[in-house]
Amino acid sequence: MSAAVSPLAPKSYPEMPVIRGVRMATAAAGIKYKNRTDVLLMVFDEPAAVAGVFTKSRCPSAPVDYCRANLAGGIARAVVVNSGNANAFTGQKGRAATELTGKSAAAAVGCSEREVFLASTGVIGEPLDASKFAGVLDQMNADAKGDFWLEAAKAIMTTDTYPKVATRTAKIGGVEVMINGIAKGAGMIAPDMATMLSYVVTDADIASPALQALLSAGVGPTFNSVTVDSDTSTSDTLMLFATGAASVDGQARIENADDAQLESFRAALNDLLKDLALQVVRDGEGARKMVEVTVTGAESDAAAKKIALSIANSPLVKTAVAGEDANWGRIVMAVGKSGELADRDRLAISFGHVRVAVNGERDPSYSEAEATAVMKQQDIPVKVDIGLGSGVATVWTCDLTKEYVEINGDYRS
Amino acid sequence: MSAAVSPLAPKSYPEMPVIRGVRMATAAAGIKYKNRTDVLLMVFDEPAAVAGVFTKSRCPSAPVDYCRANLAGGIARAVVVNSGNANAFTGQKGRAATELTGKSAAAAVGCSEREVFLASTGVIGEPLDASKFAGVLDQMNADAKGDFWLEAAKAIMTTDTYPKVATRTAKIGGVEVMINGIAKGAGMIAPDMATMLSYVVTDADIASPALQALLSAGVGPTFNSVTVDSDTSTSDTLMLFATGAASVDGQARIENADDAQLESFRAALNDLLKDLALQVVRDGEGARKMVEVTVTGAESDAAAKKIALSIANSPLVKTAVAGEDANWGRIVMAVGKSGELADRDRLAISFGHVRVAVNGERDPSYSEAEATAVMKQQDIPVKVDIGLGSGVATVWTCDLTKEYVEINGDYRS
Repeated sequence: MSAAVSPLAPKSYPEMPVIRGVRMATAAAGIKYKNRTDVLLMVFDEPAAVAGVFTKSRCPSAPVDYCRANLAGGIARAVVVNSGNANAFTGQKGRAATELTGKSAAAAVGCSEREVFLASTGVIGEPLDASKFAGVLDQMNADAKGDFWLEAAKAIMTTDTYPKVATRTAKIGGVEVMINGIAKGAGMIAPDMATMLSYVVTDADIASPALQALLSAGVGPTFNSVTVDSDTSTSDTLMLFATGAASVDGQARIENADDAQLESFRAALNDLLKDLALQVVRDGEGARKMVEVTVTGAESDAAAKKIALSIANSPLVKTAVAGEDANWGRIVMAVGKSGELADRDRLAISFGHVRVAVNGERDPSYSEAEATAVMKQQDIPVKVDIGLGSGVATVWTCDLTKEYVEINGDYRS
Repeated sequence: MSAAVSPLAPKSYPEMPVIRGVRMATAAAGIKYKNRTDVLLMVFDEPAAVAGVFTKSRCPSAPVDYCRANLAGGIARAVVVNSGNANAFTGQKGRAATELTGKSAAAAVGCSEREVFLASTGVIGEPLDASKFAGVLDQMNADAKGDFWLEAAKAIMTTDTYPKVATRTAKIGGVEVMINGIAKGAGMIAPDMATMLSYVVTDADIASPALQALLSAGVGPTFNSVTVDSDTSTSDTLMLFATGAASVDGQARIENADDAQLESFRAALNDLLKDLALQVVRDGEGARKMVEVTVTGAESDAAAKKIALSIANSPLVKTAVAGEDANWGRIVMAVGKSGELADRDRLAISFGHVRVAVNGERDPSYSEAEATAVMKQQDIPVKVDIGLGSGVATVWTCDLTKEYVEINGDYRS
């Protein structure tokens, strides 16, 4: 694991307020290592509405299968997250482990197994000894408290170099509600959820179907627009819970995602999701620089996103960024390989405010010194105009460094 | 550029025989550096049949456009290849440079511009001063000779650490014919041709349409099955020329690729293409290990290839190989992210002869020590059985090392 905190880490953490209706605790269950915090329990004392978005992997982990099945019930009372073992590709043993964990959590919290949600992160393919949870969950439920967000974020870290937290407020029908979120993820990060876990909780009173619609719409320009290494995990999980505690302040329950009263909440939620997603990129394994790739003028928004991801996932673009090299030829290459419609002679490319190419060739007024100055920044905006239509997209990635190779050439040992 | 020769380089080079009908010469035209060999001229004194396969990039280089246009004529008399400048993304100047180069070569050799084929490799986006060719091509044509294959292969190298040559013989209607090929490429290598140039010449007498059919079919399991970094160049060019000189030995001209007399030639050609393609992978930038990924049991051959490429292009798989880590969980991840049909519980994965996973979980008899021994080999076979159908594919890649990052973080300087 990396020792040093990413240079792109936030300079400070926000104060994370208590969200009424959720309590949390961590413990050392000895999943992989002794005496290391490796389990997080979240408890909703009253049934919470729940929404989830999961990895698109065709080989999802057992906990992902478990969550998908329980999501249909629309009610959450407990969440159990462990690190140290992903319980992925563990066959029948994996399913048995999720069932046992669900039972243990249900017994500890006093709810149905169908109201429990799980996630496991760590090495793939090792059987998870779920009996270890049984010994700690009762005490965790007794200890769980609301003022515990930063500790919760720390508990789910794997190769992360810093905990990821974010908080926002919004108004629904004049009543203030709060949203808190935590996330983990540093490698195996790609759109469609990567090795990324994120839990977001609000005290707003919103029905599960509306919550799901908000989350599904919010994930596209946020978590599904970040990539560290184009590799998609088997375990990615993003969940949103609504405890409904704000109803005591007079917030009328929202049943429909189209409700106009959600305007402020939707904006705050999307902003929080983006905040967490960018924190994940900024902790990309070995990352020294953050790159924001904006594509405009593509045939469609979908085409723009495909081109932007082709750029953001290109090892040659990412190594050029690591080398602080304004190598715009590699951007052209990545546009060309995306397969999307592009006309070489209409392309324009900028690094920050410096336009390096226009009309299919080097900008006559281009200054290598100015472009290089942009490349020396920690955050590098890359803008590509395709010049064909009105499709736009923005994605975020980090550079590809020797440290990425070092971290991932030695992960299991 | 890398100083050290790849540890995966061939231990020796084959003796490259003269192929009747083609002469070659190199020169230092001063494209990027003074006194460095940077131009290759191939001359066919009699019109040769010609076939070509080019990058699928939507932003191809000007020479690729030029070759595509001339291919329709079906006749080759000259090939001009330069290194140091890719003449890609150079706008109208790029087109003018190809026209000027074509004119200069036609004048030197005494043929039509429509019988000239070009390629340029090097930095993208820098205008190419094609007037420099005019000064050297006459002398090159005068000097060109048949016994020059290894020198020709050396002349087209960029970040390559060794020249790539291969030779085969075959029989057509009882007459022996020869096939020689050279290639260059080390980075920006992906299926659909990447930054790869390859020229193959035979003395067989085969009409252009048949030659094209042979080449188009041969490229799928060879050059289009290798990947170094998933990045596709704007300049990739693979050309096959048939001088027809074997007709003097009594070889009857072949008009149709379905001709049964082509059996031996087709096999020899495909074997030569595979030889060259694997030499390219073995010179992958920073490569220390070669990985052969074979996928069986997929829904279709196309699905198998997509899964195999998802594995071969995964940074996490490639860094695990670099770290000699039998991290089969990352193989599962890469199968899952390919998007192709897969059933976690039917997957089987082997490293070499060591089956590490079967029926969706770790093989009970798996030995980490044996798997690790395989990972310490220079050539590592990875086999994945999807267990669903009869689709098969094999692709080749190399590991992802710190040297790759180093080479590509500092390419232009």
